[in-house]
Amino acid sequence: MSDHTTGLQLRSLIKKTGDFELSLTRVEIPEPAADEVVVRVEASPINPSDIGLLLGAADISTAATTGSGDDVVVTAKVPVQFMKAMAGRLDESMPVGNEGAGVVVKAGSSEAAQALLGRTVAMIGGAMYAQYRTIKVADCLPLPDGTTPAEGASCFVNPLTSLGMVETMRREGHTALVHTAAASNLGQMLNRICLKDGIDLVNIVRSPAQEKLLRDLGAKYVCDSTAPSFMDDLTEALVATGATLAFDATGGGRLQGQILSAMEVMAVKAMKVYSRYGSTTHKQVYVYGRLESKPIEFSPTFGMAWGMGGWLLFPFLQKIGGADAQRLRERVAAELKTTFASHYSQVISLQEVLQLDILKAYNRRATGEKFLINPNKAG
Amino acid sequence: MSDHTTGLQLRSLIKKTGDFELSLTRVEIPEPAADEVVVRVEASPINPSDIGLLLGAADISTAATTGSGDDVVVTAKVPVQFMKAMAGRLDESMPVGNEGAGVVVKAGSSEAAQALLGRTVAMIGGAMYAQYRTIKVADCLPLPDGTTPAEGASCFVNPLTSLGMVETMRREGHTALVHTAAASNLGQMLNRICLKDGIDLVNIVRSPAQEKLLRDLGAKYVCDSTAPSFMDDLTEALVATGATLAFDATGGGRLQGQILSAMEVMAVKAMKVYSRYGSTTHKQVYVYGRLESKPIEFSPTFGMAWGMGGWLLFPFLQKIGGADAQRLRERVAAELKTTFASHYSQVISLQEVLQLDILKAYNRRATGEKFLINPNKAG
Repeated sequence: MSDHTTGLQLRSLIKKTGDFELSLTRVEIPEPAADEVVVRVEASPINPSDIGLLLGAADISTAATTGSGDDVVVTAKVPVQFMKAMAGRLDESMPVGNEGAGVVVKAGSSEAAQALLGRTVAMIGGAMYAQYRTIKVADCLPLPDGTTPAEGASCFVNPLTSLGMVETMRREGHTALVHTAAASNLGQMLNRICLKDGIDLVNIVRSPAQEKLLRDLGAKYVCDSTAPSFMDDLTEALVATGATLAFDATGGGRLQGQILSAMEVMAVKAMKVYSRYGSTTHKQVYVYGRLESKPIEFSPTFGMAWGMGGWLLFPFLQKIGGADAQRLRERVAAELKTTFASHYSQVISLQEVLQLDILKAYNRRATGEKFLINPNKAG
Repeated sequence: MSDHTTGLQLRSLIKKTGDFELSLTRVEIPEPAADEVVVRVEASPINPSDIGLLLGAADISTAATTGSGDDVVVTAKVPVQFMKAMAGRLDESMPVGNEGAGVVVKAGSSEAAQALLGRTVAMIGGAMYAQYRTIKVADCLPLPDGTTPAEGASCFVNPLTSLGMVETMRREGHTALVHTAAASNLGQMLNRICLKDGIDLVNIVRSPAQEKLLRDLGAKYVCDSTAPSFMDDLTEALVATGATLAFDATGGGRLQGQILSAMEVMAVKAMKVYSRYGSTTHKQVYVYGRLESKPIEFSPTFGMAWGMGGWLLFPFLQKIGGADAQRLRERVAAELKTTFASHYSQVISLQEVLQLDILKAYNRRATGEKFLINPNKAG
């Protein structure tokens, strides 16, 4: 591939028949336009936000493989009740991978493109699970000298999401935060931002081990949702911090309602006169992930001043506008090896993405298990 | 009571012991201050929003009465799991009744107060389930000549709530509305506003009879949630109207999520490129009531651009400010006998509020059954 004209690309396909296929395809590498470069991708994380596109609604317990080497194909069935949600992607072979990093091996004619030749850059824009990616200069972030592709692979999704949460807090008039699945890579990053910026953060985790992990990282407020005292612990942490905004990665179960209920108990404590409508303090939960497949369930008994809603990075960045989004990006570049450092438990090749034992491992989305793909690693 | 110094007032009490009591008390009528009047209350509706304070979390299947005449006391038990939600009102004997109308029988010294002597006025401010109410002139709306207290009893809650929904729609950039429990008094009012103002309204009802009722009132889009074709009917109505905002009176079950799902199907139909994050069209459900006691349950599979939240009239009026709130009030006064007319199935005395068969009837909150209290009707 020294000519950079073709390369392997990972593809996810769901057919109208309900058949799911994951495979590698050799694709042409488009010649770069004037404002584009070709990057040899050397690192791309498997974020929870990638897995939705990667595996769709496939039932992984039905997964099997055929073929060998670059021709391995993973097949599985999509349960019929989920086919409607897949309607928009049926029979389209989709490239995957939101972000990554690598070395610029070819550049378009513009000065900005030429300036990147040989540089290590971080990228955002999809189709990163591939050996080569032709991409606009504007979607690249040149990394400081001495930064490896692995160090720069997660420059966008987790760093900008965690910074976006803090930015949302400020813009919507809250002064402290609640975060669920708080021991995640993203959660640890948010914890570092909040410690650095002096923001009170209530971390909700799902085990004593996760609680210890965060406390060892300096977190002051950590509540274990599996503890019998959880609601009391949470209420106490909310009273101490005054947090009225939560970001939830689980997207299912009763946690969202429990958070709003505990916020309301805190808010009602501060009221002088009874109102059957509850407090007038606005309490908000943003759901940004779906680690939990159960439905969200809650009784709206936390007053009338509450909101729940989806939160997604890219529309948020669009809303705040170019200058503010650029300010967030610059902070990421400046603190890439400290605040925004990511850790991976395993580095895998494109071929290993298709190995069933590895597929099942990353699909678990377990805390502490985070996979980095190096598409140019030998299979 | 011709001296207007004392009068009967209805009281609701929940004791720390979990005992609920509904009773009539003879209370002193406070002398009016300069900017106040004393009103002989002749009509006050039992709105769903009153029943929460009136009966609290009492289990009405345990209700019993003791005493006779004005001394009847209804007792019942509050299930222990609901006592926490009642914490703010324990051992406080609460007057009830958000709005009402009557005749001014005594006035304070100010010119504005004196001008109301003998006038029929509508009032907002609580404690209306009483023979007399001392109240600020600012909380009275003088009714046009020829308007009875019964006609003016529901000038505030339903009219301003339904106008507030339309106002919210405009302010938040939506162009059509969805309403649940749409055959209610409030729903019929909203239907009249939307017909008059040329706004597309998707009415969701719970029976063929309710569907017929609304169609007979000129409603164009009516979906019966008990029909097997409900989701298809709803999606079709949303495609036709482009409604991306719903107001929900039920506050429980799966309807809220079904509405967001159908809105997303509509929004995705308009998309040109697949995104696993769904459409970027913001879809909103405001929950303003709690006719349903089940929890809200939904799977957040309608993209990321969605919101659900509480909506309450008085904070909304505060938010839009005095001038705009006044504009809404003036429209109500001008269209009181047409757009904002309310209909009652029964007029009852204060003593009848305590009769178990009647209590159970208004607690059903059934469509078509609406109670008006005349506190000066002989018991």
